[in-house]
Amino acid sequence: MVGATNQTLRPFLWRAGKLYPDREIVSRTAEGLERYTYAEYEGRVAQLAGALSDAGIGDGDRVATFCWNHNRHFETYFGVPSMGAQLHTINPLLPDHHIQYIVENAADRIVFVDPSLAPKLAGAVDEDAFDSVEQFVVMASAVPDDVGLSPVTDYESFIADAPDEYDWPDLSEDQPAGMCYTSGTTGQPKGVEYSQQMLWAHTMATLPESGLDIGAEDVIMPVVPMFHVNAWGLPFSTTAAGAKHVYPGPSPTPEDLAKLIEEEGVTMTAGVPTVWLGLLDYLDEHDADVSSLERIIIGGSAAPKSVIRRFDEEHDVDVLHAWGMTELSPVGTVAHLKPGMDDLPAEEQYEKRAKQGLLAPGLEMRVVDDDGNEVPWNGEEFGELWVRGPWVTTEYFERPDANEEDFEGNWLKTGDVVTVDEDGYVQIVDRAKDVIKSGGEWISSLELENSIMAHDDVAEATVIGVPHERWQERPVAFIVPKSGADRDALKAELVALVEDEFPKWWAPDEVVFIDEVPKTATGKFDKKVLRDQYDDSSLIEGKTPDTEAPSDE
Amino acid sequence: MVGATNQTLRPFLWRAGKLYPDREIVSRTAEGLERYTYAEYEGRVAQLAGALSDAGIGDGDRVATFCWNHNRHFETYFGVPSMGAQLHTINPLLPDHHIQYIVENAADRIVFVDPSLAPKLAGAVDEDAFDSVEQFVVMASAVPDDVGLSPVTDYESFIADAPDEYDWPDLSEDQPAGMCYTSGTTGQPKGVEYSQQMLWAHTMATLPESGLDIGAEDVIMPVVPMFHVNAWGLPFSTTAAGAKHVYPGPSPTPEDLAKLIEEEGVTMTAGVPTVWLGLLDYLDEHDADVSSLERIIIGGSAAPKSVIRRFDEEHDVDVLHAWGMTELSPVGTVAHLKPGMDDLPAEEQYEKRAKQGLLAPGLEMRVVDDDGNEVPWNGEEFGELWVRGPWVTTEYFERPDANEEDFEGNWLKTGDVVTVDEDGYVQIVDRAKDVIKSGGEWISSLELENSIMAHDDVAEATVIGVPHERWQERPVAFIVPKSGADRDALKAELVALVEDEFPKWWAPDEVVFIDEVPKTATGKFDKKVLRDQYDDSSLIEGKTPDTEAPSDE
Repeated sequence: MVGATNQTLRPFLWRAGKLYPDREIVSRTAEGLERYTYAEYEGRVAQLAGALSDAGIGDGDRVATFCWNHNRHFETYFGVPSMGAQLHTINPLLPDHHIQYIVENAADRIVFVDPSLAPKLAGAVDEDAFDSVEQFVVMASAVPDDVGLSPVTDYESFIADAPDEYDWPDLSEDQPAGMCYTSGTTGQPKGVEYSQQMLWAHTMATLPESGLDIGAEDVIMPVVPMFHVNAWGLPFSTTAAGAKHVYPGPSPTPEDLAKLIEEEGVTMTAGVPTVWLGLLDYLDEHDADVSSLERIIIGGSAAPKSVIRRFDEEHDVDVLHAWGMTELSPVGTVAHLKPGMDDLPAEEQYEKRAKQGLLAPGLEMRVVDDDGNEVPWNGEEFGELWVRGPWVTTEYFERPDANEEDFEGNWLKTGDVVTVDEDGYVQIVDRAKDVIKSGGEWISSLELENSIMAHDDVAEATVIGVPHERWQERPVAFIVPKSGADRDALKAELVALVEDEFPKWWAPDEVVFIDEVPKTATGKFDKKVLRDQYDDSSLIEGKTPDTEAPSDE
Repeated sequence: MVGATNQTLRPFLWRAGKLYPDREIVSRTAEGLERYTYAEYEGRVAQLAGALSDAGIGDGDRVATFCWNHNRHFETYFGVPSMGAQLHTINPLLPDHHIQYIVENAADRIVFVDPSLAPKLAGAVDEDAFDSVEQFVVMASAVPDDVGLSPVTDYESFIADAPDEYDWPDLSEDQPAGMCYTSGTTGQPKGVEYSQQMLWAHTMATLPESGLDIGAEDVIMPVVPMFHVNAWGLPFSTTAAGAKHVYPGPSPTPEDLAKLIEEEGVTMTAGVPTVWLGLLDYLDEHDADVSSLERIIIGGSAAPKSVIRRFDEEHDVDVLHAWGMTELSPVGTVAHLKPGMDDLPAEEQYEKRAKQGLLAPGLEMRVVDDDGNEVPWNGEEFGELWVRGPWVTTEYFERPDANEEDFEGNWLKTGDVVTVDEDGYVQIVDRAKDVIKSGGEWISSLELENSIMAHDDVAEATVIGVPHERWQERPVAFIVPKSGADRDALKAELVALVEDEFPKWWAPDEVVFIDEVPKTATGKFDKKVLRDQYDDSSLIEGKTPDTEAPSDE
């Protein structure tokens, strides 16, 4: 047998405690900033492990969190998996019935919960679904009055009697270490389990320049919530590098973020685009020294080129656009510039940076059409992105139905429709379920929406494919016009606008005016509702005309 | 089961070919520089795999190389392991009987050999030892006359008929991928096998800043031979990053290196200290533009502080001192400065940089005394360095005797005696077999030698521990004086010099004058010979005096 020691998370903790004992972990709380060192962190993680063990938690048991970004949540990141249990981070923004489903599905035994989120959790507690839950632990030094959870204790009491050293077990690489559920718009959430090895590999993959480029001198502030795929793995990678952590706590405002960057010397932060738009606007109006900030990782949804440009021009900050999925632990691509691209005109650099980027070393991808053939890398042809690699899951937890549909061998079918340009940059053009398949060609509903929403008289717009006898599907646009808009003129202008920008056969067969685009629980456009309503046809003013045929090329 | 796709080398090759198709691999040959791209490289690697398969090489078979640093050797790095075979890189500097032993032990089926090394190999071929070898492949486009190897073909003919695509197998992580033998001064060489997973983990560990800090824009020239633990993994990590490769070919002179740096824009290079001393001296005398060079990885033996200083002050090049072993694939520590150390006075920075450095993320270490207790990290107390982790082997190939001695559970006992300072920097003070154990304390033979060799009248010096009834061992120094030295005066001066620099009981009990220090095949001092001769006592002029007692503290 050829071999070495297992890939597990614990040596990252050990190294940070020994080599960077004085480096800090800073947390914003309701009471102000809390700070301690890796040396203290290491001791508290051991205490947590001891307390879990005393509470009967053992090999393979699931421990859930229902928390924002702070040091106690971070303590569960190493404490739970390193003692052999599995950390299940629950998204507190989910509707109650999803929370019930995933707690029951995961059979969580303990739930750690923030004081501010306790009411939400208490509202979701349902005796059947929470049957496996033996206790709640509130992330505070005392249990708030009328917390509505039982049995319940507070975190500091929970760990108080445990020693600050723990006899860590030697774990298998396959040991389940983490778990997240994807929150699809349809059906029940699907659980993704992370083994020790997957989290180890993801950590190592995000450290280098080809990943997120993290070194010991960095000060890293994850704004992306720690319940979103482990805050993109940053709590692990920051520790592995021996860098300083800054956790912004619940619901940080742009002012909170600007202050943390200035006061703690943040060099890198990460979150969804809206957060950074908010920060840009704040910085326009206020004096704040964010000169320590070198780069921002943007993911979750597409980063507008304007955000990338503004950070570069106004604040000398590089925006690194990244793409990932719960199934990828989550990072898959990062939009680094390639050698020589520094010399391109700024706008061309922003074009590249606004794409989802280059696949990380260690992963493989293919982009396939409906027949399973790979499409060429020319920046134009669409296909579904398939990915595989050491931090890409090969199955969902107890979901043979989804496994059948979403995997092909060890390839994950991501459900993202993308182009890849000649330089290898991936760009998402649509979700596979939303792309419109017309006459053998694919039409991006997303690109149509972006184009239509740029019209001054359009408040909201969404485009879906509707069944068509001859062409399989044809696009139909649903428009919420601004008040006072001339609907007939708008309709003609929108068709003209699309025909001008895209192949003529991309133009919607019908433009339907509605009062509001239906939304999902998380605020995204809910195309499923529209599709159902359209089948009902009550919403449609006209009927689908036999328009000019899509190209058969 | 929780899992993802296996960790194997092939996706690194795939990614470089697809994302960096035009990036170059440059080789210095007898005929000048050869260059091609990753796209071509990928095709040639597939050809090699096909040719190996046609030659009957399959799952788990060993394929050996006997080569310097060039593109064809690099082709074997991905071609051999990715088709399921195991790459065994043989050190051509070994004595014939060691070559015979390891070829027989590894049961190599094909040996790739450089034209310039063919005579050496032909001289070592022995029918019994080479019984497993079915053919030799000369790394050239034709077989030289009178090559003395049979059956033999040339590399270009070997791969010519194979297609430039290969149906790569899905390999297990445990699949043996590489093999190197350690060349100890005593006993037979010990084989270390690298699994696909170990090489994957080592590659990922060396990419980040905490490792060797390799990015796509780098141009990397491994001067360390590719038969020395895979040139410290650089061919793999350079490919994973999509960086440019520069291979300096056989026996490059300082002038060759300076030219390659200048002409190819080398940003990083790596090798043993003597190479860089040679380059420094060359640069003192010649005009060469080495401004592209950002850093040099020095390993293999201790880098003198003066080399680090000269590169910094004269050429603005960072020297990164690294420590590794065949058993570690090989990188274990790198002497990066920690956050804040940039502000230290230059001399203090050089002090840190001259140490072996900080353990890489993912590994664990302990430093233990004779009783197995960990010694404190105070920069003074000695202990043997033990290491474990995902790229540290847990056994030698078919050597239960050595496994018993050199491992404790999954810990590798490195045989290096080190101190660790308060900042966590490891410094090697001796080899475990050379350290002198006197009165319960350890004396570093290496530090005594360095001190003694600084005396103007000393040409060579080595210190060994000799058995002593009361103190277990006592130091005895063997000196080759420069001609004309006053031996009696020198003896007294050396004892005074040691007593001045170290605890008084470190002073050698006896100073013995000899004509030459015995050397091993690779030019290192052979203390074993001295120990045997000292037992014989014929060399010793006096007898061991009952000197002042070592401290019992």
